Amino acid sequence: MSDIKSIKSRVRKIGMIPGELIQQDNVSSEVVISVMDYDKDSFVEKTIDAIEDCFEYKEKKSVTWINIDGNHSKDIIEKIGVHYDVHPLILEDIMTVGQRPKIEDYGGYIYVVMKMVYPDRSGKTVDEQVSLLFGANFVITIQEKPLGDPFNIIRDRIRNNLGRIRKSGADYLAYSIMDIIVDNYYVILEKIGENIETMEDETLEKPSSDTLHKIHAMKRDLISFRKFVWPLREVVNMLGRNDSGLIDKNTLPYMRDIYDHVIQLIDSVETYRDISATILDIYLSSQSNRLNLVMKRLTLINCIFMPLTVIAGIGGMSEWSMMTGSDNWRISYPLFFAGLLAISFITYRIFKWKGWT
Amino acid sequence: MSDIKSIKSRVRKIGMIPGELIQQDNVSSEVVISVMDYDKDSFVEKTIDAIEDCFEYKEKKSVTWINIDGNHSKDIIEKIGVHYDVHPLILEDIMTVGQRPKIEDYGGYIYVVMKMVYPDRSGKTVDEQVSLLFGANFVITIQEKPLGDPFNIIRDRIRNNLGRIRKSGADYLAYSIMDIIVDNYYVILEKIGENIETMEDETLEKPSSDTLHKIHAMKRDLISFRKFVWPLREVVNMLGRNDSGLIDKNTLPYMRDIYDHVIQLIDSVETYRDISATILDIYLSSQSNRLNLVMKRLTLINCIFMPLTVIAGIGGMSEWSMMTGSDNWRISYPLFFAGLLAISFITYRIFKWKGWT
Amino acid sequence: MSDIKSIKSRVRKIGMIPGELIQQDNVSSEVVISVMDYDKDSFVEKTIDAIEDCFEYKEKKSVTWINIDGNHSKDIIEKIGVHYDVHPLILEDIMTVGQRPKIEDYGGYIYVVMKMVYPDRSGKTVDEQVSLLFGANFVITIQEKPLGDPFNIIRDRIRNNLGRIRKSGADYLAYSIMDIIVDNYYVILEKIGENIETMEDETLEKPSSDTLHKIHAMKRDLISFRKFVWPLREVVNMLGRNDSGLIDKNTLPYMRDIYDHVIQLIDSVETYRDISATILDIYLSSQSNRLNLVMKRLTLINCIFMPLTVIAGIGGMSEWSMMTGSDNWRISYPLFFAGLLAISFITYRIFKWKGWT
Amino acid sequence: MSDIKSIKSRVRKIGMIPGELIQQDNVSSEVVISVMDYDKDSFVEKTIDAIEDCFEYKEKKSVTWINIDGNHSKDIIEKIGVHYDVHPLILEDIMTVGQRPKIEDYGGYIYVVMKMVYPDRSGKTVDEQVSLLFGANFVITIQEKPLGDPFNIIRDRIRNNLGRIRKSGADYLAYSIMDIIVDNYYVILEKIGENIETMEDETLEKPSSDTLHKIHAMKRDLISFRKFVWPLREVVNMLGRNDSGLIDKNTLPYMRDIYDHVIQLIDSVETYRDISATILDIYLSSQSNRLNLVMKRLTLINCIFMPLTVIAGIGGMSEWSMMTGSDNWRISYPLFFAGLLAISFITYRIFKWKGWT
Amino acid sequence: MSDIKSIKSRVRKIGMIPGELIQQDNVSSEVVISVMDYDKDSFVEKTIDAIEDCFEYKEKKSVTWINIDGNHSKDIIEKIGVHYDVHPLILEDIMTVGQRPKIEDYGGYIYVVMKMVYPDRSGKTVDEQVSLLFGANFVITIQEKPLGDPFNIIRDRIRNNLGRIRKSGADYLAYSIMDIIVDNYYVILEKIGENIETMEDETLEKPSSDTLHKIHAMKRDLISFRKFVWPLREVVNMLGRNDSGLIDKNTLPYMRDIYDHVIQLIDSVETYRDISATILDIYLSSQSNRLNLVMKRLTLINCIFMPLTVIAGIGGMSEWSMMTGSDNWRISYPLFFAGLLAISFITYRIFKWKGWT
Repeated sequence: MSDIKSIKSRVRKIGMIPGELIQQDNVSSEVVISVMDYDKDSFVEKTIDAIEDCFEYKEKKSVTWINIDGNHSKDIIEKIGVHYDVHPLILEDIMTVGQRPKIEDYGGYIYVVMKMVYPDRSGKTVDEQVSLLFGANFVITIQEKPLGDPFNIIRDRIRNNLGRIRKSGADYLAYSIMDIIVDNYYVILEKIGENIETMEDETLEKPSSDTLHKIHAMKRDLISFRKFVWPLREVVNMLGRNDSGLIDKNTLPYMRDIYDHVIQLIDSVETYRDISATILDIYLSSQSNRLNLVMKRLTLINCIFMPLTVIAGIGGMSEWSMMTGSDNWRISYPLFFAGLLAISFITYRIFKWKGWT
Repeated sequence: MSDIKSIKSRVRKIGMIPGELIQQDNVSSEVVISVMDYDKDSFVEKTIDAIEDCFEYKEKKSVTWINIDGNHSKDIIEKIGVHYDVHPLILEDIMTVGQRPKIEDYGGYIYVVMKMVYPDRSGKTVDEQVSLLFGANFVITIQEKPLGDPFNIIRDRIRNNLGRIRKSGADYLAYSIMDIIVDNYYVILEKIGENIETMEDETLEKPSSDTLHKIHAMKRDLISFRKFVWPLREVVNMLGRNDSGLIDKNTLPYMRDIYDHVIQLIDSVETYRDISATILDIYLSSQSNRLNLVMKRLTLINCIFMPLTVIAGIGGMSEWSMMTGSDNWRISYPLFFAGLLAISFITYRIFKWKGWT
Repeated sequence: MSDIKSIKSRVRKIGMIPGELIQQDNVSSEVVISVMDYDKDSFVEKTIDAIEDCFEYKEKKSVTWINIDGNHSKDIIEKIGVHYDVHPLILEDIMTVGQRPKIEDYGGYIYVVMKMVYPDRSGKTVDEQVSLLFGANFVITIQEKPLGDPFNIIRDRIRNNLGRIRKSGADYLAYSIMDIIVDNYYVILEKIGENIETMEDETLEKPSSDTLHKIHAMKRDLISFRKFVWPLREVVNMLGRNDSGLIDKNTLPYMRDIYDHVIQLIDSVETYRDISATILDIYLSSQSNRLNLVMKRLTLINCIFMPLTVIAGIGGMSEWSMMTGSDNWRISYPLFFAGLLAISFITYRIFKWKGWT
Repeated sequence: MSDIKSIKSRVRKIGMIPGELIQQDNVSSEVVISVMDYDKDSFVEKTIDAIEDCFEYKEKKSVTWINIDGNHSKDIIEKIGVHYDVHPLILEDIMTVGQRPKIEDYGGYIYVVMKMVYPDRSGKTVDEQVSLLFGANFVITIQEKPLGDPFNIIRDRIRNNLGRIRKSGADYLAYSIMDIIVDNYYVILEKIGENIETMEDETLEKPSSDTLHKIHAMKRDLISFRKFVWPLREVVNMLGRNDSGLIDKNTLPYMRDIYDHVIQLIDSVETYRDISATILDIYLSSQSNRLNLVMKRLTLINCIFMPLTVIAGIGGMSEWSMMTGSDNWRISYPLFFAGLLAISFITYRIFKWKGWT
Repeated sequence: MSDIKSIKSRVRKIGMIPGELIQQDNVSSEVVISVMDYDKDSFVEKTIDAIEDCFEYKEKKSVTWINIDGNHSKDIIEKIGVHYDVHPLILEDIMTVGQRPKIEDYGGYIYVVMKMVYPDRSGKTVDEQVSLLFGANFVITIQEKPLGDPFNIIRDRIRNNLGRIRKSGADYLAYSIMDIIVDNYYVILEKIGENIETMEDETLEKPSSDTLHKIHAMKRDLISFRKFVWPLREVVNMLGRNDSGLIDKNTLPYMRDIYDHVIQLIDSVETYRDISATILDIYLSSQSNRLNLVMKRLTLINCIFMPLTVIAGIGGMSEWSMMTGSDNWRISYPLFFAGLLAISFITYRIFKWKGWT
């Protein structure tokens, strides 16, 4: 979602009571709610129609993961708010797209909002906002759109009891979800990186006016990518420190691992920004190079033909015939042309010798 | 208000005793004072003539909101100063427009000064300085000009007991006012954003010398917008921490919510600055592209016509007739012209083949 | 005073013993010493010949303000050093012009050095270094040159018992002096600001090669203005905190008020730097615009006249007469010229249609 | 390893369980494991086939250095993980190339990952990732590729009991290894530095379009070199402070010595970045200089030949003969040519005098 | 010493045992050792042959200053190391030129390394590395080269008991030495500053292609000057704080005085960097200005002569005579030429009127 769209959506909300939720009617799609409840030994998975159907799990010690596809239903979000005692401002944030990635620690639960980007079923890159609420024994994820789902990887791990996930708490599940989201950023970065390498070659080898469009597009991609990766640094750093009691000591290294990835992403973005700035400079310089080339060519042409014009203009063939003292144009004409060619050639050699071409 | 105007107003004040107030005579408009006093159960609203009429509320526990349209009356500001025990320097700041957004915590009350921008009744964007003084049970807002009023939204909430406002204290009212001001910034940012998108297209598709004017105007808009948003970061951050005893624990998340908005505004401004820098670079490069194009065209024209000039100059028709051995110009002339055209065409093909055009 | 002059004066001092004072002989002007001693009730003002004449006030509780016009007298500075127990390095700093604004807290007294700029009697801007030494009951100001005096405003306040000054201590007097100095910076900033606005219009409307000189001058002005405003931030910030016991709690808000002004000055300087950078970019782009225009014009001229040259060169009137089959040049000539004009016009229309002009 | 490769390898791993190791089959080379165990008095060195053969040393007080050439064997890395109780995420990092230099302190051991660059046996520069795990009495180094080995210098010191190494603990060994790696960075920096000096001369003396390619390559080299030196600052700084109990007080000065070297490297990189930015600016300016030169030349040519063309076109020899009143072309022709040459020469002198050439 | 040289010397040392010293054989000059021992009352000065001759002073309470001209003698440095108990890494640093300015506090002594620049006897600027070791009662200075000696100023002060030096301890002597070194930086800065002023005038008044070389040289000078001044900030700041017990309370103001000087140097360097960046921009803009001028000239020439060429080409004198109906070329020729001149003049006026020239 571009900047301007997110600003517009904010403008539309001016005058609303803070924390007030608005049913977004223009979104027609159904909201799909799926629940997973598991611990080391047991595991339940179901898709439910009413959000109330999953509230029973709140009292259980097992980890409950409620995933909601669609953040536009005021009714559902409000019920979650009431049942899990979530602050109205958080509920408002969940329902408002275009959020800057951030983390809020409200004691009993932590709220994280991020942008998720990934290739959908048809391979096209899509993006959506993901809100993550997690407490001692629950994780609630609210996705903006019911698109292809990178979270299936995690569901498989839970179903098949792979890795540490079933043995760990809600914090590890939250980690796994954020880890998948951050991993998917590398796919975008890969595209940007390949694009930059192509651009470099194009700029150095055969720059065209089209190159400028591409460089600009590349810079914009970097700027918008950077915009949702930079704030993550702070978010993940906060999770990697042991400030909140909600994250287990054993999960901390995993949070720090995400931090490392985020730093690496930022590093790469900054490197790419440096390179793209250089590419634009190189482009400008190469344009100026080309101009020099064109001008030298023009000068050469002027230099060769202008003396000829003068000479040709002086008198034409008849005078020349007169000068050579021969009336036979079969002799005087070739001589005349040979003379012109000789002058051209000499001019060209002088140019070469002076290093002007 | 532009920089230069705010500097000029400061220059005029040189030599004044610090904290001394000056009646600003050139401002002819009346000062309108409106008061609202409310708590959970009761609610009073009135417009008063003399500022003293609202001092009675100071002793009551209910929240009193005094709104003063017009900061130019020395008399009114001084009386507030005396009655609410406000520092003379604050009073001076209230009466001096062109303040940098700032916060001052004097223990018993907090002073916040911000710039408010919003569309007036006719839709034109206006800006004015808003001073905000709030203590345990009062909020005093002093506006620069008696224009259209974005605060009516809050008044409606109080009148109709919407949301938390009637159940909360003066700190929440102060929050609501600041929130409305910050929300209105998004309207400006929206315009800037739309402008930038138009500018991008124009620069890439059909840059003209007018584009330069627009890019410059856009950059200036960003610079001045940035100037009153940046300092807000510090202001709102201070309110979001629990340093002062004047802000209730329950209001803190709301203050932090404004902080998030301010950060998002700053983020967008910085992004737009990046983009506008790129646009200027692209503009310069595209100018250089165009120059290359023009020069290639000129070279082509020279290249095609210069040999022709030489040939044409050599001898004219008569010689040519002589050469073709035909006296009939009906035959020799077309041949001659065909020859010229052939040379032009060949020159053009050589250009194409060499990639010079 | 420019950078280079201040560096040169430092170079001349290489090898001197640290803290050693040098009588500056090349300065011919007299040193004028004036003293004011006041408290709430009493007030004395006099001009003295020998510095010793004011030492009696040191023991009194009333506030003594010694103002010395001229920092070149080794004798006077040394005597102050001995009597008020000032560190030799401070004395050296007082006598050395070109100091970076700074603050030194020596416990018993605070030393502040700033650059003062103000319009002199004839309206020309002059600058000089002001040293400010203040302790519990004294303020000593040492000015570089005996020029017009912005301090008279303060003297009037003392004489006429205006504002808080007579009721407050030496710290408030020191504040008043610094406040006047900072206020005078706004005069310079106003000139710079007006200059920038003129420059913007000139660059956008009718840039000439002279514009470049002016932009450079403007940038230099900003750079040097910035140089003595930036360090003030730190200086005034230190005074606004309650670290030293020499500043009364009631004076602190006033010191913070200066801090606000300094921040605003810095803000404006940075804004102007941004704008002036943009102006230079715009200038460069507009030059490139103009070049394009000139080149298009040249191409147009070439395009119109080159075909004509060829045609004219082909055969001259006589051939043409022959072609039209008319021996009457009164008919053939106008036809020929009309043909040339038609070709010119067609070429011009093609240019227009192609958007090349 | 370039950015894009490291990003691609990360993309391939999306969906893997965190801490899961993958056997990298495409790497065919054998893993070579060598062990050194030493203290002040004794010393053992051997190459082992199975990693288990060196686990016996863990219980001994002597320092054990296990060096593993090849990080692709899941089996070996896993066994080390189990035996030395290393966190699965560390094991994953060891096996994943393209790591950002970092340090992790897990209490019982410290993990450091760096990039090593050095000339191989044939003199070509190669780079590989080096992981360093060290605890109280062991150092494990895992290299990416079994190439030439800069560590032999350290092995010789151990074998021959040179310097402090045999008398010190595992921390000093870890220091020695990092020191060698950092020292080798100077070799790369030397090449970059020499390259920049060549580039400067080329840009100032005889810039060509090829120069642009070289400047770009130089900038990229700097960007990528910077990328693995910058993060080292933090890594080595952490080792130089006494936070972890694993580093002996006597080793701290050595760690700070590496820190100094890293700072110096960063300093030089930043200086080179400054210089390379200047070189690009100079290049652009020199291109513009050249363009001016070419254009002046073109103008000169136009200026000399255009008047001649006009004169030559006016009437040719015959008219001229008529004017001079001489029918003898042997006299009138030389006069005519002399006239043309005179006009050329006068034009040229005017140019010179006007300073246009 | 340039960057590349210092990097090369580091490359040569790869593989050396840390703290190992190498006798530098290529340096042929003798090492000169001079000793001064003094307190308030007594004073001894001598030049010694063997370093051991001065070790007797170590036990005395008086301040001993050992100055060693030449850092290449492994033997001498090692003996100092043993006798004064200096860490091997410090000894290595002393013998390695190209050090970044730094400070190391080893408890019993402080090590400072700086770059000294000063004019030698012939007036040429030379630079060398100075190492400074000082403890409770000794200062050891090791200079790289036995050149002209700025320290003689200090020796004179000691000999003649000028200023505080004989009354103060080793810390004041160390201060005096560093102060002299920093003072000499102003000489370099003065040259740079004068150079910049010349450059500004040249760029604005009469830029040539040579100007570019000079601007580049100026930028390089600034970059390298900056490189050894910036790190001093940290060095001197550390000395100005009372962290180490080695610096007396009375000496602290002096250390802070050096700090002020260093800050002022850095300030000036940054200002000069700003100005030199502006100069390069101005240069580029002025080149573009000139190009515009040249192009306008070319266009003017084309504009004037091209119509003439066409007219001249149309028919020559004979036709014209025919047109004017006069066979007398004495009348028709002047008329023809007058016509041509008139056309030229009209074209020129149109240009003027259109503002194209």
